[in-house]
Amino acid sequence: MIRDLTDEEARRALVLKWGSVEPDVLPAWVAEMDYALAPPVAEALQQAVLDGVTGYPPDAVDGPLGEAYAGFALRQYGQKVDPAQVLPTVDVTAGVRIALEVLSDPGPVVLPTPAYHPQLDVAGLSGRETWELPVDPGADSAMPDLDRLDDLFARGARTLLLTQPHNPLGHVHTRAQLEALRDVVVRHGARVVSDEIHAPLVLPGAEHVPYHSLDGTADHAVAVLAASKAFNTPGLRCAQIVTADLATRDRLLAEPLARNDSWSPLGEIAAVAAYREGDAWLASLVERLDQQRSLLARLLAEHLPAARMRPLQSTFLAWIDLRAYGHADPAAVALARGRVRVEGGGRFQHGLEGHVRVNVATSPERLTEIVRRLALALA
Amino acid sequence: MIRDLTDEEARRALVLKWGSVEPDVLPAWVAEMDYALAPPVAEALQQAVLDGVTGYPPDAVDGPLGEAYAGFALRQYGQKVDPAQVLPTVDVTAGVRIALEVLSDPGPVVLPTPAYHPQLDVAGLSGRETWELPVDPGADSAMPDLDRLDDLFARGARTLLLTQPHNPLGHVHTRAQLEALRDVVVRHGARVVSDEIHAPLVLPGAEHVPYHSLDGTADHAVAVLAASKAFNTPGLRCAQIVTADLATRDRLLAEPLARNDSWSPLGEIAAVAAYREGDAWLASLVERLDQQRSLLARLLAEHLPAARMRPLQSTFLAWIDLRAYGHADPAAVALARGRVRVEGGGRFQHGLEGHVRVNVATSPERLTEIVRRLALALA
Ligand SMILES: Cc1ncc(COP(=O)(O)O)c(C=O)c1O
Ligand SMILES: Cc1ncc(COP(=O)(O)O)c(C=O)c1O
Repeated sequence: MIRDLTDEEARRALVLKWGSVEPDVLPAWVAEMDYALAPPVAEALQQAVLDGVTGYPPDAVDGPLGEAYAGFALRQYGQKVDPAQVLPTVDVTAGVRIALEVLSDPGPVVLPTPAYHPQLDVAGLSGRETWELPVDPGADSAMPDLDRLDDLFARGARTLLLTQPHNPLGHVHTRAQLEALRDVVVRHGARVVSDEIHAPLVLPGAEHVPYHSLDGTADHAVAVLAASKAFNTPGLRCAQIVTADLATRDRLLAEPLARNDSWSPLGEIAAVAAYREGDAWLASLVERLDQQRSLLARLLAEHLPAARMRPLQSTFLAWIDLRAYGHADPAAVALARGRVRVEGGGRFQHGLEGHVRVNVATSPERLTEIVRRLALALA
Repeated sequence: MIRDLTDEEARRALVLKWGSVEPDVLPAWVAEMDYALAPPVAEALQQAVLDGVTGYPPDAVDGPLGEAYAGFALRQYGQKVDPAQVLPTVDVTAGVRIALEVLSDPGPVVLPTPAYHPQLDVAGLSGRETWELPVDPGADSAMPDLDRLDDLFARGARTLLLTQPHNPLGHVHTRAQLEALRDVVVRHGARVVSDEIHAPLVLPGAEHVPYHSLDGTADHAVAVLAASKAFNTPGLRCAQIVTADLATRDRLLAEPLARNDSWSPLGEIAAVAAYREGDAWLASLVERLDQQRSLLARLLAEHLPAARMRPLQSTFLAWIDLRAYGHADPAAVALARGRVRVEGGGRFQHGLEGHVRVNVATSPERLTEIVRRLALALA
C-alpha cells in the first residue's frame, strides 16, 4: 500500500527535502517521507482544489475536524476526546507558541534536550526563557531526570514542553514515566504543553499514551498534534490544539482572531480525510517503517559497526551516535564526502555534533545507499 | 473572463463566506469573491496537488516568488523591487505581527480607524499598545489628520500601521498624501508597516503608489502584501513581506525559523502563478469590479436613496452610511429581516454601527438582490 516515490517524483513533491540539495546528494534530513500520499488524502485534496476551496477556513469549532480526530484518537489510542475541544491551528510549532502565550504564566519553560530545533526558540518567541533539561542520548532511558525537573520548577519554571513520542531521540514514554512527570508538574502547579505530532507513528513494541489521558492532567495541559507528520502533509498547514477541559478551550477561543487564524482549509480537509479514512494506509506505513528500522540496524552492523543507534520506538528519524569514528561533525563529512544529507546532532542540542539523525522513511534501496555513503564518508 | 460561481459552486468553494450562513442568507460579508479562480492559478494548484506538493516549502529566499513579485510590481505599479527582498510569510496579518515584533521599538502603534478588524488586535499580540487615529468615514478625504499623527508620535508612538489601499473605506492615498505621512514619520524616527494587500485591486480613476516607492522610506518601512485578495486565495497561506533595504531584510532573516515558517508551498505556487500569469485575468476582474461599483451606486440611488456610499477607489468592499434609516445596527437588521449578511461598521471601529460594509464581488444579479434585501429590511 505504501508507494515509493521515484527520484523524479520526490524532487517534484518534496521541494525542501529533495529540492534544496544538489542533484547528486541523497536527502535523509528533514522529516518528510519519500512515499506517495495516502489515497484518501490525495483524493480529498484533489477534489478540494477542483472545487476551488482556496478561501478562508470555516470557524474553529463545529467543523468536521473535531469529530474526525476524536474518532481517530479512540481507534488508535483508546482515548476519548471531546470533538468540541479540538481546535485548528496553522502548525504544531505555532500551536505550541499559542499555548504558551495564552495559557502559561510568563515564567521559564523547561525543554528536555536534544529537541526538535524550532522548539529551542519557541519559548523565546513568546517572551519566555527556555531552560534546557539535557537527557543523555546514550542512556538506556530517555526519561528526563525527575529531580532536576523538580528543581527547575522550584526555581521558577512554569511549563514543561514535552515531546512524546520524541524527535530526535525516537523514544516513547511509558504510562508510568508520564505519571511520574505529571506528579512533579502537579506538585508545582505548573503546566504542560505536549507535542504529540509523532503519535500515529509509534512502531510495534511501544504504545502511545496521550498525556491528557492520564488522571489529573486536564486542567494543566494541552496537546498539540497533527496528521501532517504521519501523512506527509506538513506544508498543508492545519495542526490541532486539543484540550481536555472546557475552561482551557474557552481561554483559547476567547483570544482575538488574529492570534490564531492562519490554518488552511486544504490542510483541514487533508487532516479530516487522514483521520477518517487513513487507518489502513497508516498501518501499512507503520509496517514499512518497522522494516526500515530493522534494515537500518542490519546495515549499521555491517557497514558502521561502531555506530550506536538508539532504539527507534517511534518516528522515522533514527538517532545515531557516530563519535566512535572520530569526526567533529560527521553530518558535514557525510555531506561533503558521501553526498548524503543527514541532520547533525548539534542542531538539536549544542554539543551533540558527534551524533546524527537519519530519516529512514524512504525505500529499502535508498536506505541501503544512505548507509553505504555514510560508511564511505566516515569509516 | 471572470466566471461567476453558481450558488452551489460558491457553497463548495467558499466554506466561510457561503458555508457559515444559513442557506437562505445571501452572503456579502467576508472579503472573498464569488468568482472562479484565475485559470493559471487553478491549473498550477491542480498540478501541484497531483504532484503531491504537500511538504515543507523551499527556503525563504532564492525561490521563484521574489522574481515573480518583482515582475508584477514593475508591470502593475512601475515599481522596482529587489527579488531578494521578497520574503514569504503565512498571511498578511501574521506578517504585520512579525514586522512589528522584529523591527519596531516596543512603543505604541498608531492605527487609523476604521480598520480591518484583526488589525485592531495585532499590535496587542506583539506586546504593543494600539493607539487609534479615527478618520471620519463621512469626510471627503480619508487621510489621517497629520497633526494628530504628529502628536501621537510626539507622545511616544513608534510605528504607523498603514493600510493602503484601505479596507474598509476603499480609499487610495495619493502620492502627495503618502509623502505628507512619510514626512511626519521621518521627523519622529518612527517606522511604517504598510499593508498593501489590496493594491492589485485599484479601480479605474485611482493609482496605487507603493509606500516604499517614495524617497526616504527604505530604512523605516516594510510592505506586507499578497496575491491572495485579488486572486481569491486567502486560504492558501502565502503572503509576502517586502523590504527595500537589505539590512532590514537581514534582520528578518536572522530570526529563528519558528518565528516565520508557516507558509504553504501551495500558497507560494498559487502566488507565483498569479504574479507571473495573472495580469489578463486581473484586468478583467478590475473591469468587473468597476461595473459592480457603478451598479451598486445606481441600485442604492434607486432603493436606498438616503444611503451614503463612500467613493470606492479600490477593493470590492463598499462602505455605506445607513444612519439615515435610523437603525442602531443595520447589519443585524439586514440579516434578521432581509436575509443578507453584510459587515456591521462597528467591527471596524467602535461607534460606527450605523454603517455597513458590502462585498460587491459577486454577480450583477446577486448584487441587485443584495440591495433589494437591504432596502426591504431597512427602508
Ligand atoms: C516534535 C515535532 N514537533 C513539531 C514538528 C513540526 O510541526 P509543524 O511543521 O506542524 O510545526 C516536528 C517536525 O518534524 C516535530 O518533530
Ligand atoms: C487590509 C487587509 N489586510 C489583511 C487582510 C487579511 O489578510 P490575511 O488573510 O492574509 O491575513 C485583509 C482581508 O481582507 C485586509 O483587508
